[in-house]
Amino acid sequence: MIERLIDVALGRTPADVVLKNGTFVNVFTGQVQRGDIAIACGKVAGIGAYEGEREYDIRGKVAVPGLIDAHVHIESAQLSPEEFARLVMPRGTTTVIADPHEIVNVCGVDGAQYIARAAQNTPLEVKLMLPSCVPATPFETSGACLTGEQTAALLQGDAFFGLGEFMNAPGVLGKDAEALRKLEGARAAGKMVDGHAPGLEGAELDAYIAAGISTDHECTCVAEAAEKAARGMYVHLREGSAARNVAENCGAVTAANLRRFLFCTDDRHAADICAHGHLDAALRTAVQAGLSPVWAVIIATLNAAECYGLRGKGAIAPGCDADIAVFDDLENFHCAFTFKKGELVAIEGMPLFGAGQKYLPDCVRDTVHVGGISPDSFRISLKGGYANVIRVQPGSLVTGRSVRAVASADGDVDLRGTDLLKLAVVERHRGSGNIGLGLAEGCGLWGGAIATSVAHDSHNVIVLGDNNADMAAAVQELARIGGGMAVVGRGRTASLPLDIAGLMSSLPAEEYAARAAALDEAAYELGFSREFSPFMALSFLALPVIPSLKLTDRGLFDVEKFDFCPLDADPPQEAGAADSGARSEGDAGGAEEPGEE
Amino acid sequence: MIERLIDVALGRTPADVVLKNGTFVNVFTGQVQRGDIAIACGKVAGIGAYEGEREYDIRGKVAVPGLIDAHVHIESAQLSPEEFARLVMPRGTTTVIADPHEIVNVCGVDGAQYIARAAQNTPLEVKLMLPSCVPATPFETSGACLTGEQTAALLQGDAFFGLGEFMNAPGVLGKDAEALRKLEGARAAGKMVDGHAPGLEGAELDAYIAAGISTDHECTCVAEAAEKAARGMYVHLREGSAARNVAENCGAVTAANLRRFLFCTDDRHAADICAHGHLDAALRTAVQAGLSPVWAVIIATLNAAECYGLRGKGAIAPGCDADIAVFDDLENFHCAFTFKKGELVAIEGMPLFGAGQKYLPDCVRDTVHVGGISPDSFRISLKGGYANVIRVQPGSLVTGRSVRAVASADGDVDLRGTDLLKLAVVERHRGSGNIGLGLAEGCGLWGGAIATSVAHDSHNVIVLGDNNADMAAAVQELARIGGGMAVVGRGRTASLPLDIAGLMSSLPAEEYAARAAALDEAAYELGFSREFSPFMALSFLALPVIPSLKLTDRGLFDVEKFDFCPLDADPPQEAGAADSGARSEGDAGGAEEPGEE
Repeated sequence: MIERLIDVALGRTPADVVLKNGTFVNVFTGQVQRGDIAIACGKVAGIGAYEGEREYDIRGKVAVPGLIDAHVHIESAQLSPEEFARLVMPRGTTTVIADPHEIVNVCGVDGAQYIARAAQNTPLEVKLMLPSCVPATPFETSGACLTGEQTAALLQGDAFFGLGEFMNAPGVLGKDAEALRKLEGARAAGKMVDGHAPGLEGAELDAYIAAGISTDHECTCVAEAAEKAARGMYVHLREGSAARNVAENCGAVTAANLRRFLFCTDDRHAADICAHGHLDAALRTAVQAGLSPVWAVIIATLNAAECYGLRGKGAIAPGCDADIAVFDDLENFHCAFTFKKGELVAIEGMPLFGAGQKYLPDCVRDTVHVGGISPDSFRISLKGGYANVIRVQPGSLVTGRSVRAVASADGDVDLRGTDLLKLAVVERHRGSGNIGLGLAEGCGLWGGAIATSVAHDSHNVIVLGDNNADMAAAVQELARIGGGMAVVGRGRTASLPLDIAGLMSSLPAEEYAARAAALDEAAYELGFSREFSPFMALSFLALPVIPSLKLTDRGLFDVEKFDFCPLDADPPQEAGAADSGARSEGDAGGAEEPGEE
Repeated sequence: MIERLIDVALGRTPADVVLKNGTFVNVFTGQVQRGDIAIACGKVAGIGAYEGEREYDIRGKVAVPGLIDAHVHIESAQLSPEEFARLVMPRGTTTVIADPHEIVNVCGVDGAQYIARAAQNTPLEVKLMLPSCVPATPFETSGACLTGEQTAALLQGDAFFGLGEFMNAPGVLGKDAEALRKLEGARAAGKMVDGHAPGLEGAELDAYIAAGISTDHECTCVAEAAEKAARGMYVHLREGSAARNVAENCGAVTAANLRRFLFCTDDRHAADICAHGHLDAALRTAVQAGLSPVWAVIIATLNAAECYGLRGKGAIAPGCDADIAVFDDLENFHCAFTFKKGELVAIEGMPLFGAGQKYLPDCVRDTVHVGGISPDSFRISLKGGYANVIRVQPGSLVTGRSVRAVASADGDVDLRGTDLLKLAVVERHRGSGNIGLGLAEGCGLWGGAIATSVAHDSHNVIVLGDNNADMAAAVQELARIGGGMAVVGRGRTASLPLDIAGLMSSLPAEEYAARAAALDEAAYELGFSREFSPFMALSFLALPVIPSLKLTDRGLFDVEKFDFCPLDADPPQEAGAADSGARSEGDAGGAEEPGEE
């Protein structure tokens, strides 16, 4: 290969491919330059005046290095890796640093291997991080458990590029032995560790970084992003579906700290990628927010390559991999061509590679085993007349909490005439019959139930409804279709399979996005508030690391106290407020109106 | 270790060491900040308000990350690695990327291992690059030969951090099989390759970079440095003894390309380090030339760490190695304290560690074996009356060339009444008796000879003199002392051993520098022009990769033609110029006056 690169660079022989007549972003100088880009053996050989066996006229367009998504859970697109690649590569993404946190919590390390092998059916380059929190907390039942010892051993091998986002910041600061064993394992293997430390600052932030954690993608304001960069972290500017921090946080980027920023999508749903784009959307957003277009490109390319040690990526320069996105301009970032290792893989939004025969090993199929579930499984027997209630809040993953008066009849709560709904998390990995029961307010919905097997981070089945029969039917429907989403009510059942680990669909992206939208519509027809994306909202109600009140298969969980919490509540102490939610708490500032943040 | 870092960062327990009351350069933000630097287990734990078991008051001073010399031949200091460390660490250097090119050309890989093990007697961190050009050319006899196959095998191991400066640029462009085998070996081992490509530009530069070569330290002007950085190279700003490019080349640094520059010393003699400093001198020079002091620090630290993938180096930040230089200010860069992994290793120019028992294995001793050398060995028998003559030029490693009329008598040239001197290179590795003979002009010197076993890059013995007896005596003196430098003439012999491989002295730095200066003085007393540093000038006359006429143990060498050249010359064609140098050529522009450049 070196011989051919030399010959092509020197013009002794035609290149494999030449991108002619256009410009390119030189990430080393910050300039947009002219020059034919000569490619051989999948690498850039030279830039100047060249002839090639295949030539692409990119006149009027600008080539940039292939975009690198520095942190993504592919599962959150709810597509197979094959379909994910078909969706993101036409938008200029050529490499992703993937943390298969969701599927490993369901299928164990087999799930990560599945992601890697499925991605190999496509030109997309996937660097796998080993999930660090499986399960995310000890307060839930996941499909797998990775101990510190296992983590350290896995990091010694070649399968994983590093240790995935270390969400257990309290465990780090509290010197939890298992957490530190994982960090020591990464250090011993010479591998990097991604972080996840929302709001951490000062000495606690120093401790977290000193423990060996290099990045953070959870900054929510300029000051936080700037401090983390100043302490030596790489800071991901995130443009996900629920969490979108690019417009705000790119205000933290300066000429001096530029090299410390990256772009990521973290959790971005197929529908958002179809409608709004992938990293191209992040670039667009950043530029609209005032970031220099060239800086945005550098952040999306060279910086990510430097942070993750991806030698030969992140630049259009001799010897670099010919991963190239050709955009119409640096404002709208409409991607005209994507090249991966010199091969044209997408034109004008269309992938040139098929999903082919999808890789679907047994380990990711038939993963929903809920044990014997009947309507009676959802009976809630309170000792008194008050309950701790989860308040679901639009536009936020943070829930509030209320104490509500709740009537009971026949050994079950009687929710008629209230806005309260039953929420249940049904263990689905081992068929144990474990079920956590709770109450929720703020979503709407009557005469039915909705359920999904995407329930962060252990991905049990979560179901919300106003009656036991529909709730049981919804869970049984998910068991029948091998996981997915279901809406049951008023005599109708609608569902959409997520046949891969109960998390991802093997459908084509556009078809999946359309069917998911239709299922949302079915939930809205049951009265679910249009302020929410129903299944996404539902899927975060089981996540016991985001405040304030959540539900796992083992019960109601108080995130601030980081312990379980009884469903029964003491009567509120204030008089005259017993009927409608006497006491309200929550990060949203104690707003007493359900639905306000 | 992680546990303790966390505890110290959080202030739960005192740090091992705290640097209090000072400021530090935050290389991530480009700012000079306040804050106590808390150190534990050799790493920075946190920055803020801290207490420590040992505290150093650095009020009024500024801490910067330990300086990293990105490319150095330690041998060129002509000191043992132990003494080298004692010299450079008090000046703020804590890590060097060392290319043991000189000693490996004498002792083979054993020489590199010697450097590594000797350095372990000191706190200095030495990352070894594997020399790529052993021998530098096939036109000389070196003490070792590293084939492509051997190089590839060595790079697979842990001993070498990468492949050293790839001087054989013509071999790369010409696809020399051995050269490419070495580059393939580096690629296969995932190791980086340093470059050496003076003047290379355009398509040839692209080809050289595409072949896998990442850095260059041979730029001699802003345009060259800027182009190489724009093509994706890391560009070393060099402040050596002979070659000093910092003042000029730092003009190529911009906010946009800042991260592509490094500092190096390449070849810097003990005397220069003693008198003027090491990387601190480079920083001083750069700032005097107008470079931002903070940029200079970033170049000397973070950039080098990024280029060479030295994780945890190059910054004062949590989790980073506590390699710290404390300077009085960012203008004079007077180093008050040096810390290595949290240990104070130097104060105010004085090392706190001894050279101890120097490591001096047999492999680096007794390396000068010249065979049977007598005055007759230096007889030069010309066929005609003209000779090709090397013109030595002050301030330049480039030699000129002249055709001179030369008288002969008794089967030897008769140089009486001329400024011509005999130059000889005597093979000294194998005692083969190989001797290359030539003539030189431009140095002065009469009634004697000077000789050294430092003769780039094969380090045979090179001797210059006006009479055979003194030349033979000088060579024999070197054989007697095991290599070094000798001045013989007018009945006196002075010498200074370089007892380590004939390249380096085991003396303390200051003593060595003083004795070397005295020996230079002895050469000047024999008439050697004070425009030269006599032994340094001599040592480059054997280097067949720098134009234009050089001498190896196998004969006179025409660098432009890259082939041997007869000593006999045709008579000059122009009339009337035969007596004093009829035809002059050379990179210096054909100046006909000896000694002019």
